[in-house]
Amino acid sequence: MKDQVIPKATAKRLPLYYRYLRILNNSGKQKVSSTELSEAVQVDSATIRRDFSYFGELGKRGYGYDVEALMNFFAKTLNDDHMSNVALVGVGNLGSALLKYKFHQSNSIRISAAFDVNEDIVGRIVDGIPVYPLSDMAEQIKLQQIDIAILTVPAESSQPIVDDLVKSGIKGILNFTPARLHAPKSVLVQNVDLTNELQTLIYFLHANSQDENK
Amino acid sequence: MKDQVIPKATAKRLPLYYRYLRILNNSGKQKVSSTELSEAVQVDSATIRRDFSYFGELGKRGYGYDVEALMNFFAKTLNDDHMSNVALVGVGNLGSALLKYKFHQSNSIRISAAFDVNEDIVGRIVDGIPVYPLSDMAEQIKLQQIDIAILTVPAESSQPIVDDLVKSGIKGILNFTPARLHAPKSVLVQNVDLTNELQTLIYFLHANSQDENK
Repeated sequence: MKDQVIPKATAKRLPLYYRYLRILNNSGKQKVSSTELSEAVQVDSATIRRDFSYFGELGKRGYGYDVEALMNFFAKTLNDDHMSNVALVGVGNLGSALLKYKFHQSNSIRISAAFDVNEDIVGRIVDGIPVYPLSDMAEQIKLQQIDIAILTVPAESSQPIVDDLVKSGIKGILNFTPARLHAPKSVLVQNVDLTNELQTLIYFLHANSQDENK
Repeated sequence: MKDQVIPKATAKRLPLYYRYLRILNNSGKQKVSSTELSEAVQVDSATIRRDFSYFGELGKRGYGYDVEALMNFFAKTLNDDHMSNVALVGVGNLGSALLKYKFHQSNSIRISAAFDVNEDIVGRIVDGIPVYPLSDMAEQIKLQQIDIAILTVPAESSQPIVDDLVKSGIKGILNFTPARLHAPKSVLVQNVDLTNELQTLIYFLHANSQDENK
């Protein structure tokens, strides 16, 4: 494997490739051409070849890819051969929905603990996942060796919680709040801002329709 | 304004800039330096300058930016000076959470109709938003002049619904299903795949920790 940093855009496509390869493998298929792969994941072939090139030689030109070998390679690359315990902090509307969300592509991601301040839900088990008080967060994160947290708290309470998460040893945060979080460089923060997604879509729609009117 | 296509990464940062400018403007601030902007939105200054350069001259070097002018510019660019009616299709766990979600940065985005097949919720009003049967979708989308849909249905039922949305005149789809949708080029599909987000984060965590162990 080449030793280099992989662009974020490439990293975001790896789960797509992996998911499709799993579907193919389950259906008993042994080879896949880059054209088939391209059509299924809706990424153009040139991009796929460039993405794959970061990992060295994954297939032979004109021969296609060996489905099982490629699937196993991506499983390892995506750490899908290890179980990742994830914490969810903030069991409000979005948090509750995520507790019920099937992280469908992966058998290796499991929300193993949820945290909230609301006494009506603390102590309950929601969709198989125990909800602990926020005061137990540090202890549970250490006990369960969790290094990833999904953050679905109100924006205004996010930063102190992030500080606590960092102190408890969390290494990655999937941030659903609109707040821009401060964390040490050793902690990865990935922002999923739903309003941003919608505004960006509206921006592109608007830009496109101006193009058409020319 | 320069007439060119703006990279997706830039477009995704525009709502961030815009939100921060609104906060500044509300607090009565008139000027902002690129350093302040950079710290608040956590995007480095070089990237901000490059992003802004797509829109021509937005500020003077060494002088900073005029908050209100820049805010108004982004409001127009993001179409935030027009109300966008949005449809939500699929009122399951995630769909219900999104109906309750405050699209916080924007007063101009409004989910005006939701659609589902479940007779228990059809005909009800959830958080102020009427839920219609799927069979009324085409009619309501035309009637309410909706051009954006949020898709939160099960993956396996997504494609026929997308076909119907396209026929009804929808121009943009925010796709929360893991399915890769087929739509004409004139329809923008933006994918928000929550499992992908989590897998990408795990990938980077893993890649980072291997780096550290060298």
